[in-house]
Order: sequence, then structure tokens, then C-alpha cells
Amino acid sequence: MSDPRTHPTAVDTPTSSALGRHLLVDLYGCARGRLDDLDYVRQCLLNAAVQAGATVVDSHFHSFSPCGVSGTVSIQESHLSIHTWPEHLYAAVDVFTCGSSVDPWRAYESLKNAFEADRGSAMEVHRGRPDLL
Amino acid sequence: MSDPRTHPTAVDTPTSSALGRHLLVDLYGCARGRLDDLDYVRQCLLNAAVQAGATVVDSHFHSFSPCGVSGTVSIQESHLSIHTWPEHLYAAVDVFTCGSSVDPWRAYESLKNAFEADRGSAMEVHRGRPDLL
Repeated sequence: MSDPRTHPTAVDTPTSSALGRHLLVDLYGCARGRLDDLDYVRQCLLNAAVQAGATVVDSHFHSFSPCGVSGTVSIQESHLSIHTWPEHLYAAVDVFTCGSSVDPWRAYESLKNAFEADRGSAMEVHRGRPDLL
Repeated sequence: MSDPRTHPTAVDTPTSSALGRHLLVDLYGCARGRLDDLDYVRQCLLNAAVQAGATVVDSHFHSFSPCGVSGTVSIQESHLSIHTWPEHLYAAVDVFTCGSSVDPWRAYESLKNAFEADRGSAMEVHRGRPDLL
């Protein structure tokens, strides 16, 4: 696993031993058609989970009227979720992982490419910090 | 809807017109047995969604070995998720909502009570800020 402290956007250090690593991802300027294609969005999330090194348990996706897709992927190591607003070319993604074998930043890179985002931002939040338990 | 700016833990203002309101909830010192009871955890999340004013679409929960429960609740207005670590008396919850008819802070209060948390913290993050779209 990469050290979260080496990422400039990681916050709340020292937390390398936190129970969970939670990446809040915002993707801007995405390809509109891809954000409104449920099958594509689902495959992107599943691919991102695999890229991160996670084991997928199940996944559930829904389309909304007039547009937009929401979905969650349960992984052995926690979950991924996505909500898309095609009309704004925007997607909000969360990648929540636990354990040392998974790197959520790999999911971020995978998703940014898959949706052809002009700009992406991600903030890592450490959940279950040992000094707070 | 309550104004998110009146909450001392709300961040990233001005964002009253953000696409999504995302509450990152940490619950400490919870009742251990409740964190490891899948049916109880599921019911708590469903109740919290209703308390927030959300419309539930579906829900999926899993138990983990040797202990712990993970789950997601899809709502018309986005999602809720939970991961519990009974051995640490800790739960990480996310409440992601969109639209003006839902108040994620009501879900926070509901969950803090349901798990009998000694301490709870919540940080509101505004997703899809209009000035960034």
C-alpha cells in the first residue's frame, strides 16, 4: 500500500493505522453520455474496485429521471459509491477501503480516465483514527 | 431544510446550492452488541433514512468474520452507508443527500441514539459546488 501521507491531498495525519481510508472524489467536465449510461457507470466502478485491489461482494445501480445514475459497490474492504449529474458533467464518487492490501488512489485514477474528466479532485479522510477510538 | 451554514461542523461554505450534502459521521463508544447485529444495523440505517426525510430505494447488508457489519441504503436522494468495528465500539457512517426536502443531520441524531454512542462527530462536505462545476 502506498503511504497516504505522501499524497498532498491526504489529511488528518498521522493516520497510517486508521481503520479506514476514505477518498472523496469529485470529477468535473466528464463525458456526458458516459455519466448517463448505467451499464458503463457500473463497469467503471467495478473496474475501479479491481484496480484498487479490492474484492467485490455485490453492486447495485439505478438510473434516475430525467438523467443521472447512482450506484454502490460493496467490497470485502468496504465500498465504492457514485452519483452522476450528466447535465453538469459531474460525478461524486466515494472510495472507502480498509486493510493494507487496497489502494483507493488507484480507483481514483481509473475513474478519472474512464469518465474522461477534465478535472478531478480527491481528498483522503482517515476514518476510525486510533487516537480517537 | 435547515441551513447547513448554521451547523458549526459544516465546511466549504458558501454551498447552500451544492448538488449534494455529504455527512461523514464517526460514532465512538457504541454498544458493542448492536454494532455486530446485522438486522439491528440495517433497521437503524433504514430508520435514519426515513428520519432524514428520504425515500428508500433498496438496501444491502453483509456480516464479516470475525465481526462487523457493512451496508448501504440507496435512497432516491443518494445513499447512506455504514461500516462497523464492534471490537473498537466504532462505526463509520456516511449520509449523502441531494435536494431540499432531506436533512442529513436528522439521520445523524437518529444513528447516534440508536447505537448509544458515547461520542459522535460529523462533518458536512458539500459535493458538486456550483462555483466549481
